[in-house]
Amino acid sequence: MVRTIDTIQVGESASMTKTVTETDVVLFAGISGDFNPAHIDEESAKQSMFGKRIAHGMLSVGFISAVLGTKLPGPGSIYVGQEIKFTKPVFIGDTVTATATVTEANVEKNRVTLDTIVTNQDGDVVIKGVATLMPPKK
Amino acid sequence: MVRTIDTIQVGESASMTKTVTETDVVLFAGISGDFNPAHIDEESAKQSMFGKRIAHGMLSVGFISAVLGTKLPGPGSIYVGQEIKFTKPVFIGDTVTATATVTEANVEKNRVTLDTIVTNQDGDVVIKGVATLMPPKK
Amino acid sequence: MVRTIDTIQVGESASMTKTVTETDVVLFAGISGDFNPAHIDEESAKQSMFGKRIAHGMLSVGFISAVLGTKLPGPGSIYVGQEIKFTKPVFIGDTVTATATVTEANVEKNRVTLDTIVTNQDGDVVIKGVATLMPPKK
Amino acid sequence: MVRTIDTIQVGESASMTKTVTETDVVLFAGISGDFNPAHIDEESAKQSMFGKRIAHGMLSVGFISAVLGTKLPGPGSIYVGQEIKFTKPVFIGDTVTATATVTEANVEKNRVTLDTIVTNQDGDVVIKGVATLMPPKK
Repeated sequence: MVRTIDTIQVGESASMTKTVTETDVVLFAGISGDFNPAHIDEESAKQSMFGKRIAHGMLSVGFISAVLGTKLPGPGSIYVGQEIKFTKPVFIGDTVTATATVTEANVEKNRVTLDTIVTNQDGDVVIKGVATLMPPKK
Repeated sequence: MVRTIDTIQVGESASMTKTVTETDVVLFAGISGDFNPAHIDEESAKQSMFGKRIAHGMLSVGFISAVLGTKLPGPGSIYVGQEIKFTKPVFIGDTVTATATVTEANVEKNRVTLDTIVTNQDGDVVIKGVATLMPPKK
Repeated sequence: MVRTIDTIQVGESASMTKTVTETDVVLFAGISGDFNPAHIDEESAKQSMFGKRIAHGMLSVGFISAVLGTKLPGPGSIYVGQEIKFTKPVFIGDTVTATATVTEANVEKNRVTLDTIVTNQDGDVVIKGVATLMPPKK
Repeated sequence: MVRTIDTIQVGESASMTKTVTETDVVLFAGISGDFNPAHIDEESAKQSMFGKRIAHGMLSVGFISAVLGTKLPGPGSIYVGQEIKFTKPVFIGDTVTATATVTEANVEKNRVTLDTIVTNQDGDVVIKGVATLMPPKK
């Protein structure tokens, strides 16, 4: 199951899809301490530019992490870095898809680079970014 | 409480400290779907280079998000982007401190840039990075 | 409170009723790792034969386990086996009742056998099966 | 990704491994209502034949459900039935592996039958059983 750098092809991709529930937002707030009113205070959220509570951005980044850690490059890889741009909010009830696509597999440096995006049920990109990982050695 | 760009000074900083528990890791796996064995399988983790289960990196990034969203620049800001480097693992039981320090406050663009680091109880840097946010307009 | 085999009568029954919430489904997915899209992806669930997300079958079997472990035969019993047929889906928001009814109490073998069914708020049987337990010795 | 009956081979198998944590037991108790003292009362568990709290059997059956629902036969299949024998207790801290192996793939009836076992870190079988599912039609 473990993927070493020489087995990883540019262009490969993997994804996961999940509906973001209120429970997810409550639990993420509870474990991170991110009690920003945008996530936990419906009354103030109504007055905000978004009009309702939004999910934590890092929760959706967690779906990228899930794809990287369980699918591509998968178990055994070391997560080196991640660049993230938040382009649209994710609302409670949205169904988002995190997709990682290999853009470089550097055998000498044992580094794999992936484009990472999260889209919602309307096809809007809500997060885009780049991940870097070190696959396990043989 | 709301901080607009003109009230934010370069050099200001804020932080939060939390012990990372097994419960946090179980819940983060549960909401993100990141069931990478490094986080949930003690037996395979024993065989890994770290020797035991490690926390999800994005959980600790969540502490950065908590500082940004609740303290500096705080509620009302839009999270634009985050760059992250994972420099050391966080183990279950570690107590980590996430700190954000303003490095630029651009009034024209309404953008604040912050250095974001997470350290553990030994003072080791486990995550470093840069955050960009848009504070609320007056 | 502890029931030994000689105190258990054929025909006795016990039950519990609970509304199955989205939170229950999110938490069950999170602790079991069962991220089947039928449970966590509303968009694909819409396209399925059921038209919306369904609860994990084993969550409802958990209600049978709750009746057996806390009511009949109750604490101290060893759960030996369970046969299950899933006859209808349970949807988020359904209120289900798990009922266990003693069909045999074998004093020589110290075994109690129970019919176990789960019904929904419309009276439809969603799960049926048979449980076998060993009550505590005197 | 979806597996129809004609693509499933006798002898195929899939598995998942997870450390059973106290958090998992607390959450399973909370969503199922199974507050049997064997799972949530350390003091009475000390006096029991097992000497400490044990995990809910149905939690480990949940890992079987996870393998069936996400890997083999995977998404789109309908869970028809499950027979379970509990052969040994699972303790908090145990690392268990659920494995499903196809024993029959009946194209006419669109039924797949799998042997399902759960083992612990010592290789002991803690659960054994048989699952029946209907894969999605083409």
